[in-house]
Amino acid sequence: MADPLEERPTPYLVVDADLLEANIADMAAVAADRGVALRPHAKTHKTPEIARLQLAAGAVGLTVATVAEAETFAAHGCPDLFVAYPLWVDPAKGRRLRVLSERALLTLAVDSVEGARALAAQVPGSRVVVEVDSGQHRSGVAPAETGALAEVAAASGLEVVGVFTFPGHSYAPGVQDEVAAQEAAALAEAAASLTAHGIAPTVVSGGSTPSVAQAHGDVLTEVRPGVYPFGDAQQWELGTTTPDRIALTCIATVVSHAGGRVVLDAGSKAIAPDRSAWATGHGRLLDHPDARLVQLSEHHAVTVWDSGPLPALGSRLRVVPNHVCNAVNLTDELVVVRGGEVVDTWRVAARGANT
Amino acid sequence: MADPLEERPTPYLVVDADLLEANIADMAAVAADRGVALRPHAKTHKTPEIARLQLAAGAVGLTVATVAEAETFAAHGCPDLFVAYPLWVDPAKGRRLRVLSERALLTLAVDSVEGARALAAQVPGSRVVVEVDSGQHRSGVAPAETGALAEVAAASGLEVVGVFTFPGHSYAPGVQDEVAAQEAAALAEAAASLTAHGIAPTVVSGGSTPSVAQAHGDVLTEVRPGVYPFGDAQQWELGTTTPDRIALTCIATVVSHAGGRVVLDAGSKAIAPDRSAWATGHGRLLDHPDARLVQLSEHHAVTVWDSGPLPALGSRLRVVPNHVCNAVNLTDELVVVRGGEVVDTWRVAARGANT
Repeated sequence: MADPLEERPTPYLVVDADLLEANIADMAAVAADRGVALRPHAKTHKTPEIARLQLAAGAVGLTVATVAEAETFAAHGCPDLFVAYPLWVDPAKGRRLRVLSERALLTLAVDSVEGARALAAQVPGSRVVVEVDSGQHRSGVAPAETGALAEVAAASGLEVVGVFTFPGHSYAPGVQDEVAAQEAAALAEAAASLTAHGIAPTVVSGGSTPSVAQAHGDVLTEVRPGVYPFGDAQQWELGTTTPDRIALTCIATVVSHAGGRVVLDAGSKAIAPDRSAWATGHGRLLDHPDARLVQLSEHHAVTVWDSGPLPALGSRLRVVPNHVCNAVNLTDELVVVRGGEVVDTWRVAARGANT
Repeated sequence: MADPLEERPTPYLVVDADLLEANIADMAAVAADRGVALRPHAKTHKTPEIARLQLAAGAVGLTVATVAEAETFAAHGCPDLFVAYPLWVDPAKGRRLRVLSERALLTLAVDSVEGARALAAQVPGSRVVVEVDSGQHRSGVAPAETGALAEVAAASGLEVVGVFTFPGHSYAPGVQDEVAAQEAAALAEAAASLTAHGIAPTVVSGGSTPSVAQAHGDVLTEVRPGVYPFGDAQQWELGTTTPDRIALTCIATVVSHAGGRVVLDAGSKAIAPDRSAWATGHGRLLDHPDARLVQLSEHHAVTVWDSGPLPALGSRLRVVPNHVCNAVNLTDELVVVRGGEVVDTWRVAARGANT
């Protein structure tokens, strides 16, 4: 490949704007096809320019993981934010949420009586959804417990508008249909539980990038995929994207041929150390799909080369991170290219906004 | 524990200054005991205040991994910097190195003829050491090849002053004696190879935090441990530190009791996703050594609790990251405490300085 910025020191992240826009348009079409609203998770990109593209393509608002991300995107003009996390709202967080709620329509999450009461004490009247565990076994109550919690939350003075789940167990090979079915079943049971407790669920929210194409539109009202604007090596290996649609790569330099190896300068401080048990390595090379990243340290990626001559020392390769959300959180800016030419640089405005 | 900053939103990193200073003093004593100079790796902390403590305790200079780290520490007054990495020096990097070499005594690394010639073309007369592979099989030439490469480097106009290795395979249980012996054998052979090619090795550099107490002072002239000022869960589980000496923790809030689990808000964007095959989990709880971090996502750490009552929702716990170098690179500042009181905040000046 031609390196768009030969003078720029590696490693750095580059975004292909044409592919990014195609991915954003495609996901808008998927959501429309499933009959659900799209509320992308902005923790993946943390970048206002990308949020604007998502909203322009029809997203109803953004999902974020932290109050600090909500503050960033509200400051950049996003009017509708869902913090999909069971925040523990102490007085300091309460003050921030009260300020935020004057700038944006804010939806918050609860998964415990104590958490709901703490929120209600700090930000009375908050609009909330109840988190449901659909099989990942992280946060979220059992579907059958949703209504009881919602009733307590409402009695505490919160406005309960629905239920949500994150089907994170969709991150495994070949499980997407099954996980989407579990997601729908859990959300349907939770929504019925709310109704049985006299609360009408207007929001029934789910979705992850791997499972969103299988989302059950007869149950869900919205989906919250995050990774799809970029794609990454996990999605590639799950088969939920193809390498020709991966919009973000890390440009890395070959620094060593020691022992016949190809050592790149994109280590865990550039592409992040994530590695699922089912991954083939610590990332992939976009233009050399048979190569494997077999060893990763902070500034070295040791690759095993399939065949043919080794890439020359000093040459630059495109590395696809395993988990793009963590890679983006390591950098302050994204270099933007179109047709191989640099057209912009975007600041990762919410980099580090993780509290 | 008392949280030193109840108002500060979690997750955040806190450093116990008394323990930090004790760790720095102890490593100075270990190096003295082994008869070697100490050149700490600053990639771990990226923080000028900590570098100053190390230099004040007798460190002969700093090790860094990138030119950007060298620029940061030179700007903060460190006069002696070793970039322990086989840089590929293109014209842009050459300009930066020429500027740097006017501010600090700079030692660079080579592990290939091409790399040495590229460096010599950009920064003639650079002081270099040859990287040797002592068993990690990352970068570095075989010990027997060291002299031939050194001769080419010298003929290219570089000042070759010695050899170095990083025995990264010391990061495994029970191997430290064996790895230190391999390190010494590889460095001794490499130094002899230099001598045989007419170049006197005045620098014979090795060392990692796990293996430094076994460093062979009859071969090595200096060691470059990085993690020791803080310690982390990897060192704890390797037995190369004890929990009462771990100086850096991530303060996290219990946000969920869903399913009887204890879910903390310190995820991979706060403590980093590193997990070695031999680790017991994604990190440790300093005050609850039997608890296990069994599932980590970007903003959730799911812990399995050994016994007794679960910590209350909203309570704050101290998480020990598996790999402190990657955790520190995620934050812009470190909160500094003494005796439980906040005494300072240090900026992680080289956070993100990874090119």
